[in-house]
Amino acid sequence: MMPKIAVLGVGRIGRMHAENIAAHPRATLAGVFDVHEPSAKDVSQKLGVKQFGSVEDVFSSSDVDAVLIATSTPTHADLLEKAVAAGKPVLCEKPIDLSLERVNACAAKISGTKVPIMLGFVRRFDSGHSAVRKAIEAGKIGDLHQVVITSRDPGMAPAAYIEVSGGIFRDMTIHDFDMARFILGEEVVEVTATGSRLVDADLMNKCDDYDTVSVILKTASGKQCIINNSRRAVYGYDQRVEALGSAGMAISENRPINHLRLYSETSTDQAAPLLNFFIDRYADAFAAEISAFVDAVETGTPPSVGFEDGRQALILAEAAIRSVAEGRSINTNEIR
Amino acid sequence: MMPKIAVLGVGRIGRMHAENIAAHPRATLAGVFDVHEPSAKDVSQKLGVKQFGSVEDVFSSSDVDAVLIATSTPTHADLLEKAVAAGKPVLCEKPIDLSLERVNACAAKISGTKVPIMLGFVRRFDSGHSAVRKAIEAGKIGDLHQVVITSRDPGMAPAAYIEVSGGIFRDMTIHDFDMARFILGEEVVEVTATGSRLVDADLMNKCDDYDTVSVILKTASGKQCIINNSRRAVYGYDQRVEALGSAGMAISENRPINHLRLYSETSTDQAAPLLNFFIDRYADAFAAEISAFVDAVETGTPPSVGFEDGRQALILAEAAIRSVAEGRSINTNEIR
Amino acid sequence: MMPKIAVLGVGRIGRMHAENIAAHPRATLAGVFDVHEPSAKDVSQKLGVKQFGSVEDVFSSSDVDAVLIATSTPTHADLLEKAVAAGKPVLCEKPIDLSLERVNACAAKISGTKVPIMLGFVRRFDSGHSAVRKAIEAGKIGDLHQVVITSRDPGMAPAAYIEVSGGIFRDMTIHDFDMARFILGEEVVEVTATGSRLVDADLMNKCDDYDTVSVILKTASGKQCIINNSRRAVYGYDQRVEALGSAGMAISENRPINHLRLYSETSTDQAAPLLNFFIDRYADAFAAEISAFVDAVETGTPPSVGFEDGRQALILAEAAIRSVAEGRSINTNEIR
Amino acid sequence: MMPKIAVLGVGRIGRMHAENIAAHPRATLAGVFDVHEPSAKDVSQKLGVKQFGSVEDVFSSSDVDAVLIATSTPTHADLLEKAVAAGKPVLCEKPIDLSLERVNACAAKISGTKVPIMLGFVRRFDSGHSAVRKAIEAGKIGDLHQVVITSRDPGMAPAAYIEVSGGIFRDMTIHDFDMARFILGEEVVEVTATGSRLVDADLMNKCDDYDTVSVILKTASGKQCIINNSRRAVYGYDQRVEALGSAGMAISENRPINHLRLYSETSTDQAAPLLNFFIDRYADAFAAEISAFVDAVETGTPPSVGFEDGRQALILAEAAIRSVAEGRSINTNEIR
Repeated sequence: MMPKIAVLGVGRIGRMHAENIAAHPRATLAGVFDVHEPSAKDVSQKLGVKQFGSVEDVFSSSDVDAVLIATSTPTHADLLEKAVAAGKPVLCEKPIDLSLERVNACAAKISGTKVPIMLGFVRRFDSGHSAVRKAIEAGKIGDLHQVVITSRDPGMAPAAYIEVSGGIFRDMTIHDFDMARFILGEEVVEVTATGSRLVDADLMNKCDDYDTVSVILKTASGKQCIINNSRRAVYGYDQRVEALGSAGMAISENRPINHLRLYSETSTDQAAPLLNFFIDRYADAFAAEISAFVDAVETGTPPSVGFEDGRQALILAEAAIRSVAEGRSINTNEIR
Repeated sequence: MMPKIAVLGVGRIGRMHAENIAAHPRATLAGVFDVHEPSAKDVSQKLGVKQFGSVEDVFSSSDVDAVLIATSTPTHADLLEKAVAAGKPVLCEKPIDLSLERVNACAAKISGTKVPIMLGFVRRFDSGHSAVRKAIEAGKIGDLHQVVITSRDPGMAPAAYIEVSGGIFRDMTIHDFDMARFILGEEVVEVTATGSRLVDADLMNKCDDYDTVSVILKTASGKQCIINNSRRAVYGYDQRVEALGSAGMAISENRPINHLRLYSETSTDQAAPLLNFFIDRYADAFAAEISAFVDAVETGTPPSVGFEDGRQALILAEAAIRSVAEGRSINTNEIR
Repeated sequence: MMPKIAVLGVGRIGRMHAENIAAHPRATLAGVFDVHEPSAKDVSQKLGVKQFGSVEDVFSSSDVDAVLIATSTPTHADLLEKAVAAGKPVLCEKPIDLSLERVNACAAKISGTKVPIMLGFVRRFDSGHSAVRKAIEAGKIGDLHQVVITSRDPGMAPAAYIEVSGGIFRDMTIHDFDMARFILGEEVVEVTATGSRLVDADLMNKCDDYDTVSVILKTASGKQCIINNSRRAVYGYDQRVEALGSAGMAISENRPINHLRLYSETSTDQAAPLLNFFIDRYADAFAAEISAFVDAVETGTPPSVGFEDGRQALILAEAAIRSVAEGRSINTNEIR
Repeated sequence: MMPKIAVLGVGRIGRMHAENIAAHPRATLAGVFDVHEPSAKDVSQKLGVKQFGSVEDVFSSSDVDAVLIATSTPTHADLLEKAVAAGKPVLCEKPIDLSLERVNACAAKISGTKVPIMLGFVRRFDSGHSAVRKAIEAGKIGDLHQVVITSRDPGMAPAAYIEVSGGIFRDMTIHDFDMARFILGEEVVEVTATGSRLVDADLMNKCDDYDTVSVILKTASGKQCIINNSRRAVYGYDQRVEALGSAGMAISENRPINHLRLYSETSTDQAAPLLNFFIDRYADAFAAEISAFVDAVETGTPPSVGFEDGRQALILAEAAIRSVAEGRSINTNEIR
């Protein structure tokens, strides 16, 4: 079977997913849909595939074996429920929803389904980050003790986005919460977070949000994970994962655009700029993610990143928000 | 125009080229041919394209706008001449031929043609190596003085290959001779070479070949290029280019499989293995090469790497062979 | 004036200080004292200097211009007070005392003194760490936002030491608290800390201590500093300082024993082991520290690291201890 | 026995040696001599040691156990002969003389002496370079095949020096010839060299010298060594040694001033400048060299770098000069 996958939403990320599916040796792009009709038309013509007239057309089509949801966040949970109802395996961009209540309602509704549901935590598919996890599983660093996740955007997102994003813990740190769970291999029970307004204090004050945060996570066995975020690292998109264990340390380093190094009168050993943002930095990971989804659809086995992973990351975001507000560590039982 | 390109020869490299053309957004794979019929059948089925019955079918087909020659070396010059006769733009794998005489005859035969001819010196398309050239052109290291090319295979090629390869200077260093010309930006006038038999002395003695060589090239203005080759670097495929200029230095470093670094009780800061061999190391470069060929075909402009580049590299190989034999520097005028 | 400096306490660190003073071009080693008479005798003979019979002899000697206190921690505050009473400039190893109460009493006693008092926070004199501070002061990374201090010992200290050390925050993190204050350039107002028992749970339980801790510090303006500590990093003494600012990032990296890199069949680009522990890692810094003290003594100007720096670091340790116990952020005003 | 060592010649290098001896725990500085009387006076006063009135005073003094010769090159051989005649162990700065004839005459004169003679090839004592040799001896890279020595000065030496230096092969490459012999562990039998005038063509033309050279050395067993030199690398003093063997590769990398790395909007991962010139770059090596000499004097065993090492390096320089002139490989038997 060569699954035919439809893409819902063809903005920047949806379009990239559509191209990855079209180029995938073991999958076919069944077609695309977008409420913004010209976008859908453009992509369908470029890639030579069908443009669906409505979401319903997609879910009722016998030419669609699976769907990828890359629409705006508020529509994720609804579309996910419809996909499950239609029996179509689904790869849904994160987050499921900004509201834990809505996510829990969705969880209840789809409870017991056999339809494969995969969440788009693309960083798990990065060659370096996943190599850290594999090194841990292979025992190369012994028992895991401490994780340090450095995750900084190359520049402040547009104000229009910040205003509706749900705040830094839900829009940005959520990726790191998932990475923490992925690397720790054990659920987090305690969250402590701190936020500052240093990059753009006016915007952050206006949105009651933060641009610079530090978070400490702790598991039941005492494993610790430190996350540091900034909404602007002028030197580029800074994405590193470090794991300290009883027998060693593994680090997933940043990736430069190329492996050129320059030496001049005023500086030595200067690397090429970092790969700039997620589309570039995680290009290979996005393709690997599609492969993992195709595998799950073909074999009917549960995807490696499921619904519960989306819910858990949101729980940690909620706990972090409360930790900053109350100046204390939050046990995840208080949220769950 | 979206050029339809046929691939002649679908061994390891030809097959990769066919896949790259099939996935290319601005080109179509017109079909494949191979004297080994099952290989051609397998690729044509996997990629859903035509299997040509003969070379003549390819050259006479109106559904073929251009050809890529990836057959065995002794057939290159003939096929290249036929492609030119048929008016089909051609991308030919290196070398044109192992015999400079044959190459010169071919040059005479195709003299004056307007058909775009591109040579497969894929390393010119490597993101790091080409960044060195761009840094030089942008004046970032001032006037170029000295180039050091490190080029070592991860392991000895099969004896069957060594026996017919034409020797290390024609089968391996020839890539570095082209890289030298690419980086130097000026023709080489003097070649001095040294060869040793250290990796597999028996095989090298049998083939009257070398497995470890050092070469010094010099241009008319005095620019120097040092090439060091080994047929076996156990730590992986070692491909580095260093350029020293009056205002700085640029280095294209090796590329690891991923950006994992490991620290253990017995070692610190250990990188992931190097990308192993040319198919992996230059995967991006092979794709970029196809793009450059598509550009040339679409626009009818001369490819960036032409026939003369293939001939020049072979001249340097001839000079190197004579330098080792005679223990002296060889002026390229002696060969040309 | 070439100051004559006496060293009190010639254990491992005291002896190194004595040697550094003896070799210093602008200072003289006036002699040594140790309650363990054979140690003092050995050092005095090796370096050809006087062995003092008592602490009182040192303070009353007109041949002593300044003193360096490297005795056991419980004696620091007393000797410091005596040095001030005797009018001898003093370089005192950290900590002043494990009890903030005792430190405050000492502060009261020496209040108003003009005698130069320098604290042995040697890491401030490390070439890399101090270069981070200088890069900040030179505006190279813009406004400081976030600091990450990685500080891990190569192995667990002896149980006998752990039992009397005052706990990880007072014996180990205290160096990082001082480094945080040095890099932040602004007082810390909020401390949040987490501790785990992962390296040697039995010993930690017995001592009611931790071997793995994460700490977040925040200043009044919102600057953040993350500290991560482990009592055992098997790959060596891990000492890094990273500073993120509005215009860039500066990192003081680990220092290897030498600049050898090894490539083998099973690994690439493997660095030499890290310099193993503080005597080796900070050897240059200890010598620079002595120079700074000699400068202060010669010129009578206040040392760059004073009594208050010792007190402040202890305040942060107290806050960290309380944060772990109470699971909340601690405002330093609660301690001060 | 704590050897008393006199230093002849206290220019830049001699002064540094004098300070290293004065600070050495197992040696005493017996005094200094310089034909430029004020220099000798200055050093003798700063270090509190005797100023000798003449070379003869040094050699006849019973308070001098050994001598270090750091005078101008033309005086080296004479002083070395006098030291041997006086029975004083000697550490002589390289080169013994610029004339191989003079060196051979000196060799004949001192033939059979038991007096320890050590040559100042300081790079052998560099922690990185010597670690490459040790890695080879420990079998870590298997059988040695190819060595690449990169050796570039940070800037052109003064014209006055260039005019009398004996040319780049005798003044600069000679260090690399010695390093090649040290790393190869086998005598060189064939030398091929190329020279260009690219940095300061006018001065090089005037002096009939080169500023940019490449050299290939070969041993009887076929081991190769490539040396590349430039009289000016604007990014600093570039000193690297790379060794490829059947089982791996070892590289002694450049050393930065400190381990700071800077990331800014326009560049990432920029290291601190390289240690600038030989006094800084090889400061530790100069101190280690003195230790090796003290060991040799104390024990009466032959120094690790002897007279013959100085002669051999000069033979390679002669061969290189002839290779450039004649455009052919030179067998060292032609010189020897």
